[in-house]
Amino acid sequence: MTGYTAPTREIQFVINELGDMNRLSQLAKFVDATPDLVDAVLEEAGKLAGEVLAPLNRTGDEQGAQLVDGKVTLPQGFAEALRQFGEGGWMGIAQGPEYGGQGLPHLLHCATFELWSASNLSFALNPMLTCGAIEALAAHGSQELKATYLPPMISGDWTGTMNLTEPQAGSDLSAVRCKANPNGDHYLIEGQKIFITWGDHELADNVIHLVLARLPDAPEGTKGISLFLVPKYLVNADGSLGARNDVSAVSLEHKLGIHASPTCVMSFGDSGGAVGYLVGRENEGLAHMFTMMNHARLGVGIQGVAIADRAYQQACEYARDRVQGFAPDQQGRVAIIHHADVRRMLMLMRSLTEAARAVAYVTGATLDKAHHSDDTETAQQSSVRLDLLVPIAKGWCTEIAQEVTSLGVQVHGGMGFVEETGAAQHMRDARILTIYEGTTGIQAGDLVGRKILRDRGDALQSLVHEIQDYTQAISDADAALKSIREKLTAGLDAFRRAGEWLLSAAGEDADAPGAASVNLLMLAGVVFGGYQLARGAVAAQHKLVAGEGDADFHRAKLITAQFYAEHVLPRAAAYADTILAGPATVSALPPEHF
Amino acid sequence: MTGYTAPTREIQFVINELGDMNRLSQLAKFVDATPDLVDAVLEEAGKLAGEVLAPLNRTGDEQGAQLVDGKVTLPQGFAEALRQFGEGGWMGIAQGPEYGGQGLPHLLHCATFELWSASNLSFALNPMLTCGAIEALAAHGSQELKATYLPPMISGDWTGTMNLTEPQAGSDLSAVRCKANPNGDHYLIEGQKIFITWGDHELADNVIHLVLARLPDAPEGTKGISLFLVPKYLVNADGSLGARNDVSAVSLEHKLGIHASPTCVMSFGDSGGAVGYLVGRENEGLAHMFTMMNHARLGVGIQGVAIADRAYQQACEYARDRVQGFAPDQQGRVAIIHHADVRRMLMLMRSLTEAARAVAYVTGATLDKAHHSDDTETAQQSSVRLDLLVPIAKGWCTEIAQEVTSLGVQVHGGMGFVEETGAAQHMRDARILTIYEGTTGIQAGDLVGRKILRDRGDALQSLVHEIQDYTQAISDADAALKSIREKLTAGLDAFRRAGEWLLSAAGEDADAPGAASVNLLMLAGVVFGGYQLARGAVAAQHKLVAGEGDADFHRAKLITAQFYAEHVLPRAAAYADTILAGPATVSALPPEHF
Repeated sequence: MTGYTAPTREIQFVINELGDMNRLSQLAKFVDATPDLVDAVLEEAGKLAGEVLAPLNRTGDEQGAQLVDGKVTLPQGFAEALRQFGEGGWMGIAQGPEYGGQGLPHLLHCATFELWSASNLSFALNPMLTCGAIEALAAHGSQELKATYLPPMISGDWTGTMNLTEPQAGSDLSAVRCKANPNGDHYLIEGQKIFITWGDHELADNVIHLVLARLPDAPEGTKGISLFLVPKYLVNADGSLGARNDVSAVSLEHKLGIHASPTCVMSFGDSGGAVGYLVGRENEGLAHMFTMMNHARLGVGIQGVAIADRAYQQACEYARDRVQGFAPDQQGRVAIIHHADVRRMLMLMRSLTEAARAVAYVTGATLDKAHHSDDTETAQQSSVRLDLLVPIAKGWCTEIAQEVTSLGVQVHGGMGFVEETGAAQHMRDARILTIYEGTTGIQAGDLVGRKILRDRGDALQSLVHEIQDYTQAISDADAALKSIREKLTAGLDAFRRAGEWLLSAAGEDADAPGAASVNLLMLAGVVFGGYQLARGAVAAQHKLVAGEGDADFHRAKLITAQFYAEHVLPRAAAYADTILAGPATVSALPPEHF
Repeated sequence: MTGYTAPTREIQFVINELGDMNRLSQLAKFVDATPDLVDAVLEEAGKLAGEVLAPLNRTGDEQGAQLVDGKVTLPQGFAEALRQFGEGGWMGIAQGPEYGGQGLPHLLHCATFELWSASNLSFALNPMLTCGAIEALAAHGSQELKATYLPPMISGDWTGTMNLTEPQAGSDLSAVRCKANPNGDHYLIEGQKIFITWGDHELADNVIHLVLARLPDAPEGTKGISLFLVPKYLVNADGSLGARNDVSAVSLEHKLGIHASPTCVMSFGDSGGAVGYLVGRENEGLAHMFTMMNHARLGVGIQGVAIADRAYQQACEYARDRVQGFAPDQQGRVAIIHHADVRRMLMLMRSLTEAARAVAYVTGATLDKAHHSDDTETAQQSSVRLDLLVPIAKGWCTEIAQEVTSLGVQVHGGMGFVEETGAAQHMRDARILTIYEGTTGIQAGDLVGRKILRDRGDALQSLVHEIQDYTQAISDADAALKSIREKLTAGLDAFRRAGEWLLSAAGEDADAPGAASVNLLMLAGVVFGGYQLARGAVAAQHKLVAGEGDADFHRAKLITAQFYAEHVLPRAAAYADTILAGPATVSALPPEHF
C-alpha cells in the first residue's frame, strides 16, 4: 500500500476545537476564512495530495534527483505536479494578497503543508523553502525587489531557496565566509554553500536564492553577515528572464532519505561573481533570517506530524490485511491487528501522531494570534507563547516521527525491511527531520536558554499555570477523562519540578542547562501534547453527551487520549528524574576517554 | 571514519567480572580455556575484524549482493574474507572437537561474534546461519549425516542456511506448506522459502540447507513439520561433490540494510524435487529447530550490541574531530564533544551499549553453565535462568541498537544523513535486528507466556530476589555507587510491581499479557542491564581502592554505570506505570476504526 488519505475530519477537529479557528476568522485579517472556505480548501488540498503527490512518493524515492551534465533532473511526474501545485494557488495560501497570495491564516497553511508533506515529503520541501524565501523577501526586501520577485514566486512559476550552511559552518552560522563585493547597483557573490534543498532544478522558470554572505570589512561573527537575493537567471526590467547568473549546483548529496529532493552543493561566482541584491540592511542578514525561523521550524515540526501519519496509515492497512497466527476469542487465523501487541503499536503510533499534530497546529494558531491579533495584549502574550512553543513543536514532533516511523516498520515485520513495501522509506525520509532547521539539541538549547532562562521562567510558568487550571477542571465523572486527569496531573508535576530545577541549577553549573535541555524539551512535548489531547477528549466527551456529530469519531478521540495518558505521559517522570540527577555524569568523562 | 577497533579491554572485563569466565574454565569441558588462550583468541579475532572485515563494510553496502544469471554474487573482498575466516578456525570456535571444532565456551563465541557483527554485520550473518545449521545437525542428525557434513561446515569450506519462512507463514510456522515425499533413501523436497539469509552464493564449495517441510499425511499445524538437510550439490560417498541439486535462489530482496547479505527466495524442486535427508525424527522438525533457538536469538542480541558499539565508536571520533560553536569554559571554537548535549548523547550510547553487552554476555555464560555444568542443580537452575534471559537479551539488546544507531546519526548532524559518512548504514543495518529470529513482540510474548506465566513467576521471582540481595549490599560510601544503588532499587521496585500485576491480571483479561508484554520486556532489560552495570561498577571500585589495573578504565566504568542509573533506569517506572494501567485502551478501538 502506498496510498494516502488526507485525515480531513481529524484536521477539522484540531483546527476547530484546539486551534481556535473560530476566533482567528474573527480577526480583521482573516474575515474571508469562513468555515465553508476552510472545508473547501482542505478538500481540494486532500485531492491534490492523495491523487497527484502520493503516487509519486515511491517512484520519487527510487528514481531520485540526479545531476546530469550540470542539470538537476527530478523524477517523473514532479514537473507536472509542481505545475498543478502552482496553478492551484497553494504556494501563496498564507501569503499577502498584494502580491497574489490568498492571505489565509498560517493555521491553514499548517494543515495543507501537512498534506503535502505526508503525501510526498521530498516534493513538499520545494514549497517549504520557496515560502521561506517569499516570507524573508516580503519582510525585508525593497519595494522593487518585492514587485519583481514576489508575484512569480507566489504563483509558483519561480521557486526559492535558502543558502545558509557552509562546510565549516553547520549549525554555527557565525562562521559563514561567503563574500559579497559591491559592484554598482548590485553585489558580486562568491563562495560555496552546502545542504541547499532544491538548490537547482529545471521544473520552474527561475530559482531565487537567498544567500548569507559577508560584505568587505564586515565585522567577524554573527554581526557581519548580510542577506542577498541571487536569481538563477537575471531578470530584465520588464520581468522577462535575461542571462544565466554565475551560480550552479556542483554536486548532489547521496542521502539516507528524501531522495527526490535535490540537496545541492551550490557554487557562487566561479566565473567572476554571481549578481546579487541586498535584502534588508547591511550586516543584519542573520537577524533578517531569524524572523523566518519560527515559520521554518514549525514547518519541520509539521513534517514530523505528516510522515508519522503516513506511516500510521500504512501500518493500519497492513495490519488489517496480513493474516497470521491466532488470537484470544477469535476463530481460526486472524489479521495481525487482532494481536494485542500489534494494536498497542498502532495505538502508540496513532496517539503520538495526534498529540504531535495538536502541538504543531496550536503553535500555528498561536503564530496567527501573535502576528494578527487586533488587541496588542493578546498579540504580545501570543508572541511570548509562540517563542516558547516553536522549539517544542519542532523538536518534539520530529523526535516523535522517528519513533512512529520505526514502529511502522515493526508492524510490517520482515516485509517492513523490504524497500518495496514503502514502510522503510518513511523511516529514512523522517530521519532528516530532527537534524535540519536546527537539530533537536539546537532546539533544546533555544528552549532552555532563550525561552526559559532569559525571562527567568515567566513564559514557562504561564504555560504550567494554564495546564494546571485546565487539568483541575476536568470532570472525573467519565472514566477516560478521570484517567487522563490523573496522568496529566502527574506529568505536569514532573514538568514543574524539572523547570524549577533548571532555574535554580543554571546559575550553579554552566553545563546544567545543556545537559538537561533535550530531556526538558521532550518532557515539555509529552506534557503539552497530553494537555492538547485532554482538551480534545473533553470536547469529544461533550459532543458525545450532547449527541452531536460522529459518535465513533468522538469515542476514538477519548480512547486515543486515554491511551496516550497511560502509555506516553508516564515518560514525563522519567525525563524529570533524569534532569534532577544533574549534569555530573554528563561532564565527568574526559573527551579522550570516550 | 569507517574503521573499527575491537573493544578488547571492555570485553575482557565483562567476560571476567560479569561472565564468570574463571568458573567456566574450571568446568571439565572447558579446561583448555585458560586466560592466556582467551586473550589470544580475542587478539586474533580483533585483528581479523578490524583489518579484514571492517574495511569491507561500506563497500559491501554500496555494491550489495546481486543475482546475475542465476548466480548470487557478493561484493569485492568477501570471498577472500570468508576464506580467511574459515582458515582461522572461527566457524568452529564453540563447536565440538570431534568434528574439528575448538570446543571453547559459548561465552567466547559471543565475544568473537560481537567482533564479526560490529565490523561487518552482513558478513557475520554467514557464520551465524552456518553455526545454526551446524548445531541443529550436531544435535539431531544421524551419525552418517554428521560425518559427511559437519567437518566441511566447521572448517568453513561449506556454509549453511536455515529455511523456515514461507510467504503465508511468517512468524507463524504452523502454516508451513513445503512438501517432502519419500523416495528411496532420501526425500524429494518441493516448495518455496523466503527471507533465506545467505541462501545461495559462490563463496563456498557447497551450501547446506536445513529445511522445514511436511511429509505426506503429516498432521496439520506445528506437529506435522519435519526437518531436512538439502545440499546445493549432492555429496558422493567419498565426500566429493556430485550433481547440482534441484534448489536455487530465484530472487533477492531489495532491503533497507545489510545489503551485502543475500536474502534469497529459495525454490526447491522446480525440476522434480530436491534431494533431502531427514534430520532427527519425523514430525518433530519444529522441536528440533527450537533447540537451536536460544543460540540464534542470543546471537541476534549480540548483533545489537555489536552495531551499537560500532555506531558509538564512529560518533565519538566524529565528535572529537568536528569543530563547531563555543562551549562554557573553553577558548575559541570547540570540537562538538565539548557541547553538553553531544556528550549526553555519547554517554547514552556508551552506557546503553555497555549494559546491552553485559546482558548478552551474562546470558551467554548462563548458556554454558546450563549445558556444561558438572553438577545437575547448577545446570538446572542455569537452564531456567537462560530461558528467562534469552528473550530479554534478544529483544532488549536489539531495541537498544535502534536507539544507539539513531543517536549515532544525530551526533553527526547533517553529515549523518549523507550516506558516505557511514553513520546511516549502521542505523539501516540495525533495523532488521528487532525483526528477524522473532520480532520484539514475539520475544515479549515468549517472555510473558512461556517464561513467566507458565511457572507462575518462579523464575522471575528468583531473578528479582538475586538483584534485590545484590543491590542492598552495595556500599553507599562511594557517591557513584550510592546513586546507582538508589536508582537500581527504584527500578527493581518497578520491575517487581509489574511482574506481580502480570501474574494477577493474566487470569482476568486475555489481552493483558499481550498488551503488557513489550513494556515488560523493556522494563526487564533496563533493570537487568542496570544490575549488570552495578556489578561492574562495584568490581571497578574495588580495583580502584586496591590500586589494581587501569584506573582510567575503572573510573570510566563507574561514571558510565552512574550515568545509566540516572538517565536510563528512570524509564523502568514509566514502563511499570504503563503496564499497571492495564490493557483496556489497547483493546478498545475496533479494527475498522483505526
